Amino acid sequence: MFNSFVSYLVSPQASQGEGKMQKSLSVYDSDGSTFAPLVVIELVSETKEEAIAWLLNRVRDKQQDGGAELLVEQLTPGAQGTEKDNPNVYVVGASWQRLLYGAEDVGLFKEFNDGSMRGFTYANKHNFKEFQGDGDGFLSMAECQYIIKHELDNLRAKDEAHVPGYPKMKLYPGKSVIRRMQSKGILVQVFPLHEKEELKRLSFSWFKKIKLSFQPLDDIRHYFGEGMALYFGFLEYFTLALIPMALIGIPYYLFDWEDYDKFTVFAGFNLVWCTVILELWKRLSASLAYGWGTLSRKKAFEEPRPGFHGVLGVNPVTGRAEPLYSNAKRQLRIYLVSVPFVLLCLYLSLYVMMIYFDMEGWALMIHDEEPTFWTGLLLFIPSIIYAVVIEIMNLIYRYAAEFLTGWENHRLESTFQNHLVLKVLVFNFFNCFASLFYIAFVMQDMVLLRQSLATLLITSQILNQIMEAFLPYWLQRRRNKKAHKRMIKTMEDKELPLSEQVKLEADMSTYLGTFDDYLELFLLFGYVSLFSCVYPLAAVLVVLNNVTEVYSDAFKMCKVFKRPFSEPAANIGVWQLAFEAMSVIAVVTNCALIGMSPQVKSYFPESETQLIMWVVGFEHFLLASKFILTFVIPDVPKHIQIKLSRLEFESLEALKKRKMLEASGIPKTDK
Amino acid sequence: MFNSFVSYLVSPQASQGEGKMQKSLSVYDSDGSTFAPLVVIELVSETKEEAIAWLLNRVRDKQQDGGAELLVEQLTPGAQGTEKDNPNVYVVGASWQRLLYGAEDVGLFKEFNDGSMRGFTYANKHNFKEFQGDGDGFLSMAECQYIIKHELDNLRAKDEAHVPGYPKMKLYPGKSVIRRMQSKGILVQVFPLHEKEELKRLSFSWFKKIKLSFQPLDDIRHYFGEGMALYFGFLEYFTLALIPMALIGIPYYLFDWEDYDKFTVFAGFNLVWCTVILELWKRLSASLAYGWGTLSRKKAFEEPRPGFHGVLGVNPVTGRAEPLYSNAKRQLRIYLVSVPFVLLCLYLSLYVMMIYFDMEGWALMIHDEEPTFWTGLLLFIPSIIYAVVIEIMNLIYRYAAEFLTGWENHRLESTFQNHLVLKVLVFNFFNCFASLFYIAFVMQDMVLLRQSLATLLITSQILNQIMEAFLPYWLQRRRNKKAHKRMIKTMEDKELPLSEQVKLEADMSTYLGTFDDYLELFLLFGYVSLFSCVYPLAAVLVVLNNVTEVYSDAFKMCKVFKRPFSEPAANIGVWQLAFEAMSVIAVVTNCALIGMSPQVKSYFPESETQLIMWVVGFEHFLLASKFILTFVIPDVPKHIQIKLSRLEFESLEALKKRKMLEASGIPKTDK
Repeated sequence: MFNSFVSYLVSPQASQGEGKMQKSLSVYDSDGSTFAPLVVIELVSETKEEAIAWLLNRVRDKQQDGGAELLVEQLTPGAQGTEKDNPNVYVVGASWQRLLYGAEDVGLFKEFNDGSMRGFTYANKHNFKEFQGDGDGFLSMAECQYIIKHELDNLRAKDEAHVPGYPKMKLYPGKSVIRRMQSKGILVQVFPLHEKEELKRLSFSWFKKIKLSFQPLDDIRHYFGEGMALYFGFLEYFTLALIPMALIGIPYYLFDWEDYDKFTVFAGFNLVWCTVILELWKRLSASLAYGWGTLSRKKAFEEPRPGFHGVLGVNPVTGRAEPLYSNAKRQLRIYLVSVPFVLLCLYLSLYVMMIYFDMEGWALMIHDEEPTFWTGLLLFIPSIIYAVVIEIMNLIYRYAAEFLTGWENHRLESTFQNHLVLKVLVFNFFNCFASLFYIAFVMQDMVLLRQSLATLLITSQILNQIMEAFLPYWLQRRRNKKAHKRMIKTMEDKELPLSEQVKLEADMSTYLGTFDDYLELFLLFGYVSLFSCVYPLAAVLVVLNNVTEVYSDAFKMCKVFKRPFSEPAANIGVWQLAFEAMSVIAVVTNCALIGMSPQVKSYFPESETQLIMWVVGFEHFLLASKFILTFVIPDVPKHIQIKLSRLEFESLEALKKRKMLEASGIPKTDK
Repeated sequence: MFNSFVSYLVSPQASQGEGKMQKSLSVYDSDGSTFAPLVVIELVSETKEEAIAWLLNRVRDKQQDGGAELLVEQLTPGAQGTEKDNPNVYVVGASWQRLLYGAEDVGLFKEFNDGSMRGFTYANKHNFKEFQGDGDGFLSMAECQYIIKHELDNLRAKDEAHVPGYPKMKLYPGKSVIRRMQSKGILVQVFPLHEKEELKRLSFSWFKKIKLSFQPLDDIRHYFGEGMALYFGFLEYFTLALIPMALIGIPYYLFDWEDYDKFTVFAGFNLVWCTVILELWKRLSASLAYGWGTLSRKKAFEEPRPGFHGVLGVNPVTGRAEPLYSNAKRQLRIYLVSVPFVLLCLYLSLYVMMIYFDMEGWALMIHDEEPTFWTGLLLFIPSIIYAVVIEIMNLIYRYAAEFLTGWENHRLESTFQNHLVLKVLVFNFFNCFASLFYIAFVMQDMVLLRQSLATLLITSQILNQIMEAFLPYWLQRRRNKKAHKRMIKTMEDKELPLSEQVKLEADMSTYLGTFDDYLELFLLFGYVSLFSCVYPLAAVLVVLNNVTEVYSDAFKMCKVFKRPFSEPAANIGVWQLAFEAMSVIAVVTNCALIGMSPQVKSYFPESETQLIMWVVGFEHFLLASKFILTFVIPDVPKHIQIKLSRLEFESLEALKKRKMLEASGIPKTDK
């Protein structure tokens, strides 16, 4: 609720609706009235005065005049302000009415009086369920911040040829001002502010409680937006879905069930399970997204991403002036540079793998010569080193992939993301699993496979947790040691001045999106599913990892990073596809492993050919069933499908009625 | 063009726009004015007067009063009218303006002034490209007939509890009147009239010309609608796509290339080709559908199909009274009756197959004992008999499947069709190809496989052509021998009276949709792709068949059947999926055949296991490439994608502008 973050301090206009938007951290508008700061804009300290004045005016201008009609003020440094502080920090807010209009602009879906989710319209506002009185509890703070970001991004140049004071910073009619200033580097960052009270409540219910419980997904969505909430929802779902597998896996460890007969049963169960859980997740995520109003929300027209450059031309879709970049050139860059580069990296990864096997053989040799406890430990060293090297290579490759994909100069952020995900996925998959494939199908050494799998899985889990949450936290602590102390001191104090809060948050690291988090889950899913029939304990390890992952992710979102802008999302996007591809590969590998097991081989003592034919037939049958199952299980639960159809039907009927009225109003002269 | 079928006879009101709709076959309205008859309604001859009067009134009533606002008149029997003729035949037309409003109702897309396709609106009519003057050449006759059918179907009961005069023919508010009368049997048929002049022109350019040329797809679409035009487009595309394969296949026959090496090359080419042509067809069909305005047309809300029955309840989507039927009951019927029935039929088909193999063995035995020319011919007899039996079984099964699917009581026509297609496809696939699979993979007899394939293919082609076009034509000739003679005599005569034309057309067979035509193509595609590497001549035979198929199909559409209502379609629907599934199965069978070839076997003289591993690996690689290719090739060509996005963008912008105007109109009291 909006009112949850509003007003301990009541402003003079509190009774006039807009006044209710005041909060403890309020700044004075140029009119002398106060407003709640929602978003911070930071310009570089040496920005020219005229550019600043121009930007502020454009932000404040009325919408009819092409402005954003927002409230914006310079942040006055607090008492502790030093000369080193950047003076060009501005806080942005908006009048309550402006936010409601903005909610209509961005196409927010809210619960209607009849329980269905509908696109919010200002004219119809009183028919929405939670719109009471002046509707001050209607929009969450995250939604308000999202609206402001949208309005800022859509602040477009009119007839300015360049940013005032910067003749080289070219503008053309329709170019997003904020994006241009960002890509040219005078705009350092735009970020939303945390809300301490709500964050405290959220932290408590999320990760500070000791007792086991589901995550507060609605609260997470309320504070961080739908994209983040879907990630945590998926993480939780994935963990729960693995628990049956983990429970079955434990006796294998406890009772040393090393025979393949039982592994085969386990693998069979695993395959069905993988398919079913992925399909059920689609339905669950549709339910969640419907309740959050993102399921039927239409995507707005996508603007070019900030880094996109090209020769100024006319976009054939919008008819607006816009940089254009030839598709042929991009394809050339992809196929002549990016693809060879990825292949080279894959070769390098293979090379490293071979070194690992050499080390492995060397360690084994030493152990065989002189088998002591220490040489026994030595056996694990190559795997651990290899796991660390894999992580480092993944990290380096990640930067290279980002650079390359940026250089490919994709017009849309979504295409950029898809190409990046594809590059990173292929390499990470290869890098993490190549050695396991080699051990399983070339060396056919199941004992080594089990040992490598365990070492890789455990090492990468530990490394990940460190890299992801504790390292940034520790770095940040070091950096703001002084500021941090102050923060700790005043954390309980509601009267921490706004300027202090902004300064603290501006120095926090920026959260780069859910990409790395999903990637980690994807690789874990691979460890569980690809070779599950030789190491059933993997599921147990992944469940344990995921439980701590929830806590460390929650911790990093609340304590380590700047608040991210909420990102509306209806599903986990390309990751659903990635997980499904992995489950298809898992069918193939598991069938192959089953076919290689001595128990299965003993059924066909005479002919190896027949064995292979049976295994291949069984695999084809499984693959076909998988596809049929994907096709048969509806992606959206029935009750939500009905609600969606009803809405569509009503809008069709309304259109028909309107047309009928119009038609009867026109005199039919020639009848 | 509408004016192409309009007015040799100029009516008194010809100068008033609506008057231009008159045509040679005009009837007088109750006001004494004439109108062009478009659609015929036939009621059973003993229908009660009050029911007729009520129906005609409802059809004529104004839309505001819940009527269809169409023109309808009883057909006055011509000079040759006998007493046996049914007097309850009515012709329906509409005023020109009504048709334009109807075009908006059904959501017709037309070419706009700027070259893009847009939903037609009456208010905006003058901005459409072909709308000149009063716009009398704007709608094709097929479109007008489609509009009238739509308006008739949407004529709904108001507060009548039953059809007047028939207390048992229950109605409830919102029930489609026409559908109820149809399902209760007093409405015999509703069909659109042929237009002789246009039909003559179409026939000439379509199948009466001797020279080879592309089919006049636009004219076919103009006369028969998009669904039919897409079928003929697909037939033509499929034939053209097979020509390269046929060209490669001919030397195999001519030079007796019986070695597998060359077959392997052929099969490899075939596999890539199948995938690519199906993907390219998607793009081509998107182009066609865009030009015809069906690509971005929204599907209207689907009403229950005529045969659907259940207990009267409230539809959760529309909130209207409607029969409801529990989904659980339907599932029970499907899984407890339909599925076992289909399995039983499959078993029966297997049994027949085994009898065929017995006959085959018996014929071979006779030939071996006494090898003469006649016993050599005898070798082909079992295959021919089997092919005939397969066709008969397919035919019988088709009726059973239709009955069963009707009994499953699906609410929507589309679900009904999907279940019917699934049932028929599975059985036909099994029935036609089971014996080939058995020969190929169990008996591993490639010579027999080739011989069976050829016999099956040729026999089924001949049977199909007979069953499909010549048999109905011959039956019809016999039936209307007298009438036919008269028709032949007056065919050239433009003044054939309307009542005669209606009588002739009412007696023609009804075309039951493209289902059987697509099914035939599907099976032919199977013959070509599944075992292409043992019988490259199959492609040649299929090309020859398709060329004659075009002619016989065109002939049957123009001469044998009643004109069908045009069916808007954006693609070939479920058949695309069916063809793609077939091409996946083809990858598996061809890889297996290649693996069984002596040439390939000779590469792995030592180990059969290795051979199989390589083949399986190759097959997996092909399948993966297929999926990636499907994913990578965009389904809609770029230039159409741009047009679609532009339209969407413009409507978004228009909405925004409207909202902005509304917003600035509202006084901001609390600012």
